[in-house]
Amino acid sequence: MQFADRLQNVETSAIRELFKLLGTPGIVSFAGGFPDSAMFDVDGIREASARALDEPGALQYGATEGYEPLRSQLSAFMATKGVEVAPQGLIVTTGSQQALDLIGKTLISPGDKVIVEGPTFLATIQCFRLYGAELVSAPIDADGVKTDELEALIQEHRPKFVYLIPTFGNPSGALLTRERRKKVLEMAVRHGTVIVEDDPYGDLYFTDAPPPPSLMAMTPEVPGSRELLVHCGSMSKVLSPGLRVGWMIAPPALLANAVMCKQFSDAHTSTFAQATAAQYLKSGRMPATLANVRKVYAERCRAMAESLRSELGGAITFTQPQGGLFFWARLTGANGGPTDASVFAKKAIEQLVAFVPGAPFFAANPDVSTLRLSFATADVARIQEGIARLAKAL
Amino acid sequence: MQFADRLQNVETSAIRELFKLLGTPGIVSFAGGFPDSAMFDVDGIREASARALDEPGALQYGATEGYEPLRSQLSAFMATKGVEVAPQGLIVTTGSQQALDLIGKTLISPGDKVIVEGPTFLATIQCFRLYGAELVSAPIDADGVKTDELEALIQEHRPKFVYLIPTFGNPSGALLTRERRKKVLEMAVRHGTVIVEDDPYGDLYFTDAPPPPSLMAMTPEVPGSRELLVHCGSMSKVLSPGLRVGWMIAPPALLANAVMCKQFSDAHTSTFAQATAAQYLKSGRMPATLANVRKVYAERCRAMAESLRSELGGAITFTQPQGGLFFWARLTGANGGPTDASVFAKKAIEQLVAFVPGAPFFAANPDVSTLRLSFATADVARIQEGIARLAKAL
Repeated sequence: MQFADRLQNVETSAIRELFKLLGTPGIVSFAGGFPDSAMFDVDGIREASARALDEPGALQYGATEGYEPLRSQLSAFMATKGVEVAPQGLIVTTGSQQALDLIGKTLISPGDKVIVEGPTFLATIQCFRLYGAELVSAPIDADGVKTDELEALIQEHRPKFVYLIPTFGNPSGALLTRERRKKVLEMAVRHGTVIVEDDPYGDLYFTDAPPPPSLMAMTPEVPGSRELLVHCGSMSKVLSPGLRVGWMIAPPALLANAVMCKQFSDAHTSTFAQATAAQYLKSGRMPATLANVRKVYAERCRAMAESLRSELGGAITFTQPQGGLFFWARLTGANGGPTDASVFAKKAIEQLVAFVPGAPFFAANPDVSTLRLSFATADVARIQEGIARLAKAL
Repeated sequence: MQFADRLQNVETSAIRELFKLLGTPGIVSFAGGFPDSAMFDVDGIREASARALDEPGALQYGATEGYEPLRSQLSAFMATKGVEVAPQGLIVTTGSQQALDLIGKTLISPGDKVIVEGPTFLATIQCFRLYGAELVSAPIDADGVKTDELEALIQEHRPKFVYLIPTFGNPSGALLTRERRKKVLEMAVRHGTVIVEDDPYGDLYFTDAPPPPSLMAMTPEVPGSRELLVHCGSMSKVLSPGLRVGWMIAPPALLANAVMCKQFSDAHTSTFAQATAAQYLKSGRMPATLANVRKVYAERCRAMAESLRSELGGAITFTQPQGGLFFWARLTGANGGPTDASVFAKKAIEQLVAFVPGAPFFAANPDVSTLRLSFATADVARIQEGIARLAKAL
């Protein structure tokens, strides 16, 4: 059994077909999962890359673990978020997608169980399935994964690990409460279960204060939990996905295996991109960049919530996210409206507006009434126009 | 059985121990496999990256297949080397190491046989073993793989594919003759065997005329061979390894599977690095860069050959390479000299000179008398000094 055989298990055809239509002129797209290019700090990255090229190592082969100046900067960046990690305690990955791949390579044997949230990041489902994992889906609500159900599933399935996006999940937008976070760490210790925390959106909060600390930041509260926690970070949503710079914090033995696997995956992440990211962090521009990104996405999120309420009324339900990039909504079928999001998506395309049906985000028991709407890439006027078109498609 | 279990099969400890010693002050190292940073066209890359940042897509997510402007430039670059390939006929990889990983993911099921040259690139051996391949070693001489033996091994083992570095092999420095190249393509068709051609060194020739065309360039001479050939190229040895830009040309079905696997490996190669490489190729500086690299490496190669002959005399035998980065030598044991290169390597380190013993480069039946010397990173005076130290270590 090889990867190519398992590719057939990887259901992307519906979404691929949809994305082909996104090139249609005039379409308003809420379908993407990417940040708005218009908000990239191009000037800052330009300066950073120019300075990077003054460094002797920026164009040469580098250590598989990562470029030392970047590991140091990421260590300092994590400290601002309450995580104490030495530069040697993290490795740089080619985007956080590679962290998922290395976790698959390092931990999954064919037939292993892995628990994920239902719904969760589509590429995670696909990546772990390629390694032969059997995925178990843990239910969530607006407060994130339901911890009682999660613990029951851990006891029943004894998974190799649990994969969570605790903060502004993709696609759910859900925010795991502080109380539930602590419970997750406690059950990890109680059952000796590895938890993988994927945190690409944690900096994108719309409230005055940050969201609850990451699971990794909370490990000091639960003795023994740090040894069971893997944390994946990314520059993609806050600075630039095109750099392909992510990182992974993990217990030493797991990190060492991940490095061995990475050595034969791509030798190392682009040194030029790493040196550029390091210079960017060093330049001190990140706090202002984050503040700007938060402000703009918060406005768009608010606009989308208002338009959804006023235009679609009872046809859908949703919880307004407090951060991230996504609304996760459910068709109610009220007044004879649609209940199948993939049918609705086709009608929406006819009205020149696109979103992603939610079913593919479930590893099991898909809820076909769900859908994901990104507010990241359209400005407020386009959001209003797009939601008005959705109303027409109803 | 997972990757982490197979990591134990991956023998690198001897070389890792050696590389730890390379930080010793004053050491002359012939051990590396990397190009000389001093020869990177930093000004050209600086201009290219600045222009890349003017492109709207350079910092955004991109297609898994590769950034379109780079695919077009690589198509044109391959045309200068006699290979006709449409931009859609190649994908960009995160260094050619990732091409090897994708080939492993796409083609190898545990227990599959794969034929490689003996010796061959160490990271290839390790990468394919991680996917559970059983490697078979085909003997070579200075003219590359011995085609009669290769065909017998294909008939005996019915491998999933054959992996070759036909032009200035690592570590062998060997150059497969035109006649043998044609035989390889013919036997591929005769037995329906996929051939993977790894070609990172093909542009680094020291002769007035280029070496024989790549296997890929020769496929029109052997009907049916193109459908069985995978070609891996790289910017690493000619422009910069730090960009991590490689590419892979393959039959459509294999390429499509590789793209699916890459999607979950790292989503795509750094768009910023790809846009920079594309702008560099577009700038027209590559021919002058290649001419300079060839000239400098040719001088160093000549200097190493002369020093080896004058300083070490009959203690070693070697064939002077016509390109690439490496001398592949064999200890003769003449006059009571050493015959085990790993013992000799330790004595050499005491004299502050380093090389890599050849045994780990063999997938089977290691020849412990062999060693690899890189002439890429030391200038002529350091090469002479280093070889003089080697003579002392004798």
